[in-house]
Amino acid sequence: MASDQSKLKNDAKSEMDSPIEKCRRALQIKSQVVVNCLSELYGTCLLLFIGIGIVCQFDLSHKSLNTWIQINVGWGFAITFCVYTISKTSGGHLNPAISLMFYTFGKLPLIHVLYYSIAQTVGAFIGTALAYTLYYDQIRHALGAARIAVGPNATATLFTSMPPEHVSNVIAFYDQFVGTGFLALFVAVIVDKRNEIPVGIHPLLVGFVIAMIGMAFGMNVGYPINPARDFAPRLFAALIGYGPEMFTYHNYYFWIPIIAPFFGAVFAAWSYYLFVGFHIVDRHPSPIYMKDIKDDSGDSVPLKKNSDLA
Amino acid sequence: MASDQSKLKNDAKSEMDSPIEKCRRALQIKSQVVVNCLSELYGTCLLLFIGIGIVCQFDLSHKSLNTWIQINVGWGFAITFCVYTISKTSGGHLNPAISLMFYTFGKLPLIHVLYYSIAQTVGAFIGTALAYTLYYDQIRHALGAARIAVGPNATATLFTSMPPEHVSNVIAFYDQFVGTGFLALFVAVIVDKRNEIPVGIHPLLVGFVIAMIGMAFGMNVGYPINPARDFAPRLFAALIGYGPEMFTYHNYYFWIPIIAPFFGAVFAAWSYYLFVGFHIVDRHPSPIYMKDIKDDSGDSVPLKKNSDLA
Amino acid sequence: MASDQSKLKNDAKSEMDSPIEKCRRALQIKSQVVVNCLSELYGTCLLLFIGIGIVCQFDLSHKSLNTWIQINVGWGFAITFCVYTISKTSGGHLNPAISLMFYTFGKLPLIHVLYYSIAQTVGAFIGTALAYTLYYDQIRHALGAARIAVGPNATATLFTSMPPEHVSNVIAFYDQFVGTGFLALFVAVIVDKRNEIPVGIHPLLVGFVIAMIGMAFGMNVGYPINPARDFAPRLFAALIGYGPEMFTYHNYYFWIPIIAPFFGAVFAAWSYYLFVGFHIVDRHPSPIYMKDIKDDSGDSVPLKKNSDLA
Amino acid sequence: MASDQSKLKNDAKSEMDSPIEKCRRALQIKSQVVVNCLSELYGTCLLLFIGIGIVCQFDLSHKSLNTWIQINVGWGFAITFCVYTISKTSGGHLNPAISLMFYTFGKLPLIHVLYYSIAQTVGAFIGTALAYTLYYDQIRHALGAARIAVGPNATATLFTSMPPEHVSNVIAFYDQFVGTGFLALFVAVIVDKRNEIPVGIHPLLVGFVIAMIGMAFGMNVGYPINPARDFAPRLFAALIGYGPEMFTYHNYYFWIPIIAPFFGAVFAAWSYYLFVGFHIVDRHPSPIYMKDIKDDSGDSVPLKKNSDLA
Repeated sequence: MASDQSKLKNDAKSEMDSPIEKCRRALQIKSQVVVNCLSELYGTCLLLFIGIGIVCQFDLSHKSLNTWIQINVGWGFAITFCVYTISKTSGGHLNPAISLMFYTFGKLPLIHVLYYSIAQTVGAFIGTALAYTLYYDQIRHALGAARIAVGPNATATLFTSMPPEHVSNVIAFYDQFVGTGFLALFVAVIVDKRNEIPVGIHPLLVGFVIAMIGMAFGMNVGYPINPARDFAPRLFAALIGYGPEMFTYHNYYFWIPIIAPFFGAVFAAWSYYLFVGFHIVDRHPSPIYMKDIKDDSGDSVPLKKNSDLA
Repeated sequence: MASDQSKLKNDAKSEMDSPIEKCRRALQIKSQVVVNCLSELYGTCLLLFIGIGIVCQFDLSHKSLNTWIQINVGWGFAITFCVYTISKTSGGHLNPAISLMFYTFGKLPLIHVLYYSIAQTVGAFIGTALAYTLYYDQIRHALGAARIAVGPNATATLFTSMPPEHVSNVIAFYDQFVGTGFLALFVAVIVDKRNEIPVGIHPLLVGFVIAMIGMAFGMNVGYPINPARDFAPRLFAALIGYGPEMFTYHNYYFWIPIIAPFFGAVFAAWSYYLFVGFHIVDRHPSPIYMKDIKDDSGDSVPLKKNSDLA
Repeated sequence: MASDQSKLKNDAKSEMDSPIEKCRRALQIKSQVVVNCLSELYGTCLLLFIGIGIVCQFDLSHKSLNTWIQINVGWGFAITFCVYTISKTSGGHLNPAISLMFYTFGKLPLIHVLYYSIAQTVGAFIGTALAYTLYYDQIRHALGAARIAVGPNATATLFTSMPPEHVSNVIAFYDQFVGTGFLALFVAVIVDKRNEIPVGIHPLLVGFVIAMIGMAFGMNVGYPINPARDFAPRLFAALIGYGPEMFTYHNYYFWIPIIAPFFGAVFAAWSYYLFVGFHIVDRHPSPIYMKDIKDDSGDSVPLKKNSDLA
Repeated sequence: MASDQSKLKNDAKSEMDSPIEKCRRALQIKSQVVVNCLSELYGTCLLLFIGIGIVCQFDLSHKSLNTWIQINVGWGFAITFCVYTISKTSGGHLNPAISLMFYTFGKLPLIHVLYYSIAQTVGAFIGTALAYTLYYDQIRHALGAARIAVGPNATATLFTSMPPEHVSNVIAFYDQFVGTGFLALFVAVIVDKRNEIPVGIHPLLVGFVIAMIGMAFGMNVGYPINPARDFAPRLFAALIGYGPEMFTYHNYYFWIPIIAPFFGAVFAAWSYYLFVGFHIVDRHPSPIYMKDIKDDSGDSVPLKKNSDLA
């Protein structure tokens, strides 16, 4: 045992001298706000780079190199891995509506919701631009110089949601309220410590939620369910030639996937607590601060409560 | 270590002052029966909202925005997340036949099976109505004012099972007996503590069971395998214009997916115990009440038995 | 804490009085050989009931209610849940070739391989018959009275593998050797304690292996990779009217998916140990018998070895 | 308890006498470099055997026995299980670009990157040959004697990437930089101990990353994202009759999927650390060498750092 411990000490020492640990000591940013905004920007940039890539591959190959299920599953995995990437710093929101939900839970100051939203929108814009560049030859091959926002040959759905004529803006608002609501509701369920879902699979489950929403609520407007994900690529498309119709189309529909998600997320997440979450009986008798010290496994443990079990 | 503990105490204190914990203390319902019925109602409402949404997206887009595999996978994930949502209160049955199965296991009083079933049926009705509203513009666009229950242009399968002419009611009964049987059997396997399957992935596995049943036993009548899931949308469809043919069709088929699941669930779950479950040898020598106290990980541990190992 | 312990004792007591525990005490079979064979029979029966159901749904709906990926994923999940069902008794082989592999590992006496194989084949036969009954109306609707084993209108692939003319029996043997080999190889990897893969997800991973094999090695003869799975439905088909061509077709091909899997499974599993498994360095200094006592989590721990770490 | 311990000692003893443990003691290779190269060779051979099999089944069946999603999911699972197979010896790189990334992390000497790359390329060549043999009858049936590298009837994409005319080599380089970059980035995220992702699901997650990349970045050149995976089958194809056009095509494109992945992998993995990884605050107060001794669960634990928490 003794020799083992010294070997492990040596391992730990060499670990501390690795290039990553050295750079870490030199480059670590101390301000948590800066770190979190940087993470949200970076994560949302990756998300849109992947996500717009998925849609491009679907549309530009005329559905031969992707079908609708790959839109669902691909976006789901994109969320999964972008959340894994930044979950230990900012929490991995990637979505202003989710940030607002965490504000109402008391996990985030209100002003941070604004910071996060700006970072997410900037990241989404950069990610869109990177995906556009990557598929530039394919876009030129398929579309030529045409950038048509509206009509039978429109290709604006490469970037953002453009609802069909027969879906009213009232239904579109309801749709974004509901779609984001389900996302927020199940995120609230997954991160509720009382549900004891292992932390290590949270991002995987959130990805599956996204895939499921795309299968159930993707028909009306295409499930943006994220103000940053919808607005930033819309702005990008307007700038590269799709023009102001990106905003005027469908009686100024564009503000609906910006506004409705905030209401849906807060409403649905609190409905979970009202109907279910508040009423879960705490099982563990020991206080949370003792639990957390003993718990090395990364699994979540329920909060202490003055329950009738204690 | 000491400073750490005090920091954690502070964390725990601020956790106790969060909006969620405050509301919890104010709004928590003490009656377990009320809580459980509320949970089943809420969970089944979510389930049908998502599930009917999936079928609408499949049918109303003429299979361009969903294919059969998304019906399977989407319903599977819907079950997964609705079970996660309510598993810590009511157990997450979402299905009267599963509730009856747990009664035969001694986990639920018989009268509660009735309570649960009513809550599940009411929830399923509300969820159906919500999905119908969400897809109202699409339904009007695709169907106009027509609500045809039977015949070549029938669209009643948006809501509930309507078997083809060439499948007899005997086979339909057998099919619902078998389909619900496999669901109940594998649920019994998953929750049997002696199988030591981590509790945190139980709902995920149940979702995969649903998807698999849709791939193997979805052809005869469309795998309702749940009395509440089949009856409530059928009633809703009859009320919005599909008329009494929802119940008279196929020689009063409608009672089959209500009755057969109860028999199938109980038969199949007990067949598991007869052939396998009763014969699993307990490995752990220490009694279950000691185990449960030591076990913080959320993983299941086998029951104590006077086995030849002790 | 004290009141908690007494509450848990009461819980444990009422658990012991549940209908399941009472029946368990009355009905438990003591002979491990009988239990294991019963489990393999039951598990393989479930497997073929589901699996033949999947293929029927694919073929009889003319691929509208299943596509090739559902064959892969559906069979994968069928394996997953049938292994979960019987993994704590017989180990969940479901396949004579896997049983032989475990014999070469020293985990099973040779005579038990014979017992297991018989149980698996009988189970497979019963499962096939049950699936046939369930889809009887659909088969009659699609095929009428015709039971054609060979030729352009043949439907024998509903039950078993029938290779196309342009695939020689040499390639068919190689194909079954390789396909079963990959299954056995990855099963050996998954259950090798030195790989420290959590036991609770083993059956899930084995299911994914099956799905993958169907995507990579399903073209030549349709990946039976299991003597019991191929032979029992072939016999059933011959008996219900497909006749002796089930055995004479393709120059008596039928014995290839019976024999080749045994060679492939043993060869591939041992190739893993020769190239990789033997050379994994044991990390843990404490002996296995101490480990197993401390380990309550169901996770696997590596075996003790006289390594240079100790 | 005492009798239990002696039983477990007996179990451990018989475990030590199993055929596998006996062969292990006789055949274990002591040199870690040899073991690691052997593992990479074996793993990459399995990977290409499966992967080329998937593509053959897709192309030779004219997409009836695989669709694009099975390319994605199948390759993903192939990575998953090949990484599981060799993760405890060489670490399971299977890709020279990933090996170079680990060199920049200080986990691998530079000369070992060369050794690994050679082993991976040789393994990939052998795996390609084995898959070609397995599908020889199908290839002869579909292609006859023709081995056409370029043009409308070309079949070289059975083996390796051949970009369409309208994709420039600049975009091809960017594409391989990005695709491999995302792979390396998310591998870096997954194995970063500070992200506390359970080790037992790392290979599963890496497989999902591969599937996602195929859905988002598979259109330009077909996501080789691995120098060994692209070059070895290209050489094999050239040797069996596709000829020198395998290398001259598209203005000597062939070197792009060899070179670009190295740059992309290193750039993207370090971008993760710059934007996120360096800034994760260590939570655990106790040093890593104490943690590792206590941790039996196989879960990862964060590194000790002189953080403000201690």
